[in-house]
Amino acid sequence: MAVSKNRIKWLKSLHIKKYRQKYNNFIVEGDKMVREVLDQNPAAMLELYALEPWLSTNLPKGKVPADRIFDVSLTELGQMSGQNTPNQALALLDCDALPNVIPDKNGLVLYLDQIQDPGNMGAILRIADWFGLPGVIAGPGSADRFNAKVIQSTMGAFLRVPVEETDLGAFLSGRSDYKILAADAKGVNAFTYPFPEKAVLIIGNEGNGIAPGLFSLTDEVVSIPKGAEGGAESLNAAVAAGIICAAFQQYTYQKK
Amino acid sequence: MAVSKNRIKWLKSLHIKKYRQKYNNFIVEGDKMVREVLDQNPAAMLELYALEPWLSTNLPKGKVPADRIFDVSLTELGQMSGQNTPNQALALLDCDALPNVIPDKNGLVLYLDQIQDPGNMGAILRIADWFGLPGVIAGPGSADRFNAKVIQSTMGAFLRVPVEETDLGAFLSGRSDYKILAADAKGVNAFTYPFPEKAVLIIGNEGNGIAPGLFSLTDEVVSIPKGAEGGAESLNAAVAAGIICAAFQQYTYQKK
Repeated sequence: MAVSKNRIKWLKSLHIKKYRQKYNNFIVEGDKMVREVLDQNPAAMLELYALEPWLSTNLPKGKVPADRIFDVSLTELGQMSGQNTPNQALALLDCDALPNVIPDKNGLVLYLDQIQDPGNMGAILRIADWFGLPGVIAGPGSADRFNAKVIQSTMGAFLRVPVEETDLGAFLSGRSDYKILAADAKGVNAFTYPFPEKAVLIIGNEGNGIAPGLFSLTDEVVSIPKGAEGGAESLNAAVAAGIICAAFQQYTYQKK
Repeated sequence: MAVSKNRIKWLKSLHIKKYRQKYNNFIVEGDKMVREVLDQNPAAMLELYALEPWLSTNLPKGKVPADRIFDVSLTELGQMSGQNTPNQALALLDCDALPNVIPDKNGLVLYLDQIQDPGNMGAILRIADWFGLPGVIAGPGSADRFNAKVIQSTMGAFLRVPVEETDLGAFLSGRSDYKILAADAKGVNAFTYPFPEKAVLIIGNEGNGIAPGLFSLTDEVVSIPKGAEGGAESLNAAVAAGIICAAFQQYTYQKK
């Protein structure tokens, strides 16, 4: 089926957050990512645009209704794409099809306090996915979970990890027994800390750390011990999150 | 002192790897990074280009000879800069002024096997800096340590962490008693593994993992246990490196 110029223009507009929010749709690009969606959540796929060889190889017809599949030229794909080098396939997805409710259960929920780098946000979703954490809260000022670079750097975790876009107060209202932890310097050693079973861990902004207003809600500051000859002021936000989640998992596993 | 158009053009060329290698010089940009260099290694600074208010505030004259300091306009700074929004100061540095010999001592040396993302390489240098590791080997196909995005994401660690650009065989020749570890799935649990005192840890490429040729040199594969409900195929390369380095430090610390 041919694709109209207006449709191409509209698809292209979804690379901008304002239009993603307006239409509640987003774009996933590239062979690997589109195949992940087809495998794991084909119902989320509203439309699929791909080169003919890709369609012949991946046979999406059993998973997506035929009238939603568009065989496009490389030129058309380039016009829809947000990438410098468009890669075989592009899918239109429903924002509401991604998990967006964090279950109220034991585990470590990560709270992103203005994590602005899309690569960091993607890496943090991968951490939550790897350790099977209940979910991630994207606090105000954080990157948009539907941003193409976030999606790309999650390596598929965006399909599995519940993300709530809210602030910490709103998340906690109506939920009880969460301890609030903050990842920062000068706290207790993450590797000897007896983690609570159910907690939120605040990960601070790349440049400014954790906002003072959030610190006042914190039950415990958890730190990664520096080496005897260590010199850095801080670790990358995603790296720090990964290390503390590993410590949490290690503690929880040892207890059992 | 005024800056010639040719000099501006030459400085701009250093945003490209080929010219950095040809002239053995590189650029550090932005208020924070340039101040770090002034504080920690002013001798590395061949030339300093900055706006007048920045020069008045930071008074570099005691640290850098006056004839190497250039008071530039915002337009000139923009012409030299590789950033969209040039930020107050830019410094020309000597590549050989950065630490480039990894001391032959106990600790974990990180080997980057085609780590191509500059943000990942920068985050890994920060990890090495934080834990006080002996250094990082940038194997063939890895990002350039003098790349502006690498420099930026090290948050100053580029000034302190020794980096050798070589392959694993060349690094090991003439050095003995290094165990070779690989960070990958299906290995021993990093949190219960009795780490050797002196080792190289191979961190694999973002998409393809560790090259088969390197695996054949490996004494032990070290893994990060996945959560019971974990779903991801892998972690981000820098996150995985950070977690294994934390496990190494934890083991080494507990032993003492």
